[in-house]
Amino acid sequence: MPLLDATTVSLRKYISKDDEPDGKYRILRKIKTPLQRIAVVKEKNGPVLIYGDGYVMFGTTEDDEMWAEALVHIPMAVAKNRQRVLLIGGGGGITAREALRYSEVKEITSVDADAIMIDIGKNLKPLVKFNKGSLNNPKVTTVVKDGRLFVEYNRQKWDVIIIDIPEPSEDSLGLGRLYSREFYRLLKKRLQPGGVIAIACSVLSVMPEFCGSILATLKAAGFYVLPYHFDVMKKYEEDWGFCLAATRPISQSDVKILIRTRFLPRSRLKDMFRIPSKYRRKWKTRKIQTDRNRVLAQIHERH
Amino acid sequence: MPLLDATTVSLRKYISKDDEPDGKYRILRKIKTPLQRIAVVKEKNGPVLIYGDGYVMFGTTEDDEMWAEALVHIPMAVAKNRQRVLLIGGGGGITAREALRYSEVKEITSVDADAIMIDIGKNLKPLVKFNKGSLNNPKVTTVVKDGRLFVEYNRQKWDVIIIDIPEPSEDSLGLGRLYSREFYRLLKKRLQPGGVIAIACSVLSVMPEFCGSILATLKAAGFYVLPYHFDVMKKYEEDWGFCLAATRPISQSDVKILIRTRFLPRSRLKDMFRIPSKYRRKWKTRKIQTDRNRVLAQIHERH
Repeated sequence: MPLLDATTVSLRKYISKDDEPDGKYRILRKIKTPLQRIAVVKEKNGPVLIYGDGYVMFGTTEDDEMWAEALVHIPMAVAKNRQRVLLIGGGGGITAREALRYSEVKEITSVDADAIMIDIGKNLKPLVKFNKGSLNNPKVTTVVKDGRLFVEYNRQKWDVIIIDIPEPSEDSLGLGRLYSREFYRLLKKRLQPGGVIAIACSVLSVMPEFCGSILATLKAAGFYVLPYHFDVMKKYEEDWGFCLAATRPISQSDVKILIRTRFLPRSRLKDMFRIPSKYRRKWKTRKIQTDRNRVLAQIHERH
Repeated sequence: MPLLDATTVSLRKYISKDDEPDGKYRILRKIKTPLQRIAVVKEKNGPVLIYGDGYVMFGTTEDDEMWAEALVHIPMAVAKNRQRVLLIGGGGGITAREALRYSEVKEITSVDADAIMIDIGKNLKPLVKFNKGSLNNPKVTTVVKDGRLFVEYNRQKWDVIIIDIPEPSEDSLGLGRLYSREFYRLLKKRLQPGGVIAIACSVLSVMPEFCGSILATLKAAGFYVLPYHFDVMKKYEEDWGFCLAATRPISQSDVKILIRTRFLPRSRLKDMFRIPSKYRRKWKTRKIQTDRNRVLAQIHERH
């Protein structure tokens, strides 16, 4: 095994060995912010990938488009109105791109804790081409703030709230406060009547308990929930969990997609709401995430 | 005269000859954003200065503290309430620092069009020390958006609105839309009852017509106005104009500063509202700025 020199060691904090592209690539930007190490990578003849602390957060790939369709169009279908949309963790602008497709949408607020992430989403050319300039659209307001604090201090109400943030880890316990019962209770106050929340719940096929714990936490906060999953992404090769939450009972029959999508044909929708029982079985050992415990970070660390 | 090499020519776009520090200095950061060229400069044994397109925008100097006191505490004294404050062009966080001194303040929204400016205001160490971490305070929400678009699309209401942006120039006509009658009419809809607006009106001693035109434009938008000035800043060596606007008549007697200030003793306050007649005389030749003309850019270009 070759010894790693200091440059390589430092580079690994930006692009981990696990997530390094197989082929050739160029590093377009490499920035240490107070919150994370960000790298922007261009694969040769391939997409642009944005890394956070060594791991791909998103990129200009078809998988990211699938992800955004699954995360945006499902809650949009269920919500009573679609005028005001809050995106927590939407730095890349791909979910904003999808939300802007609804003519009803009047105002989207995209909250990210890192100003540099917003700069990338607004100005990095290949990404701006991919997200269709969504973050520069007049209807979109980009906010640099921790999502929890934004929701605590800002009393606006929303028709649809979409939460798309990394899993908490022992290093970044603060993220637990964006998955906690206390946070979900706050969100309830910020929903318009008939409003809906969608939450990205990590990889169902690797850690179903993660999604199970979010479901339990949402219920503890007084929500009705409806989990779904998406298992056809190419690169991720995994089965991803999502969850809807509302203040009234919701069921699959409420999900009538309102616009033309590329990756959500009716046949797939049916599958999406049928959670394989091997995952559901793990949901029984669920624990509730609060502001004071480390339930989700511990699940995440174990895998 | 020595020939300038390419590096010097390029540097001049970041630090103009007019605004270059006299003594030694280091360039801490130099960034070209889609909106401007930003340079962060540390003077030897002196302050940190932030340049935009060659000219100092602000810095960690006593003058900047005076500026912030004049721009914040006067409208705060006149407004009926002080719970919700909107800062348009507050990237440096110095006005936010002053606004946070009021215990009544619940939420401050600081809007800047440039994500990199917000990154600097939140993270550049000497500046964060100077602004007391104001932009990282939970009560402060930093928004990356053109101020005009923010006000158009966001229907929140504010007790105090503070506008602190550069003069429009022929190069950056968009800024005219942040001084126009149409914009001021919009602001009127965004004021809480008893709310007040303060606007920085450039250098009275160099171009009194600039302030005169803002006053005329505010009146055309249906505001009552009260201009003031501040002429004791050391470095600027100029007499700066400001203006209050409200939906009810306001006078100097309404200005009772509510907290302890360093630079606004009662004796100076009296002077601040007495505008020298040599400036006031120029206000008669005033023109109204609209979304479609270049009144302020032309005044600015002439000087």
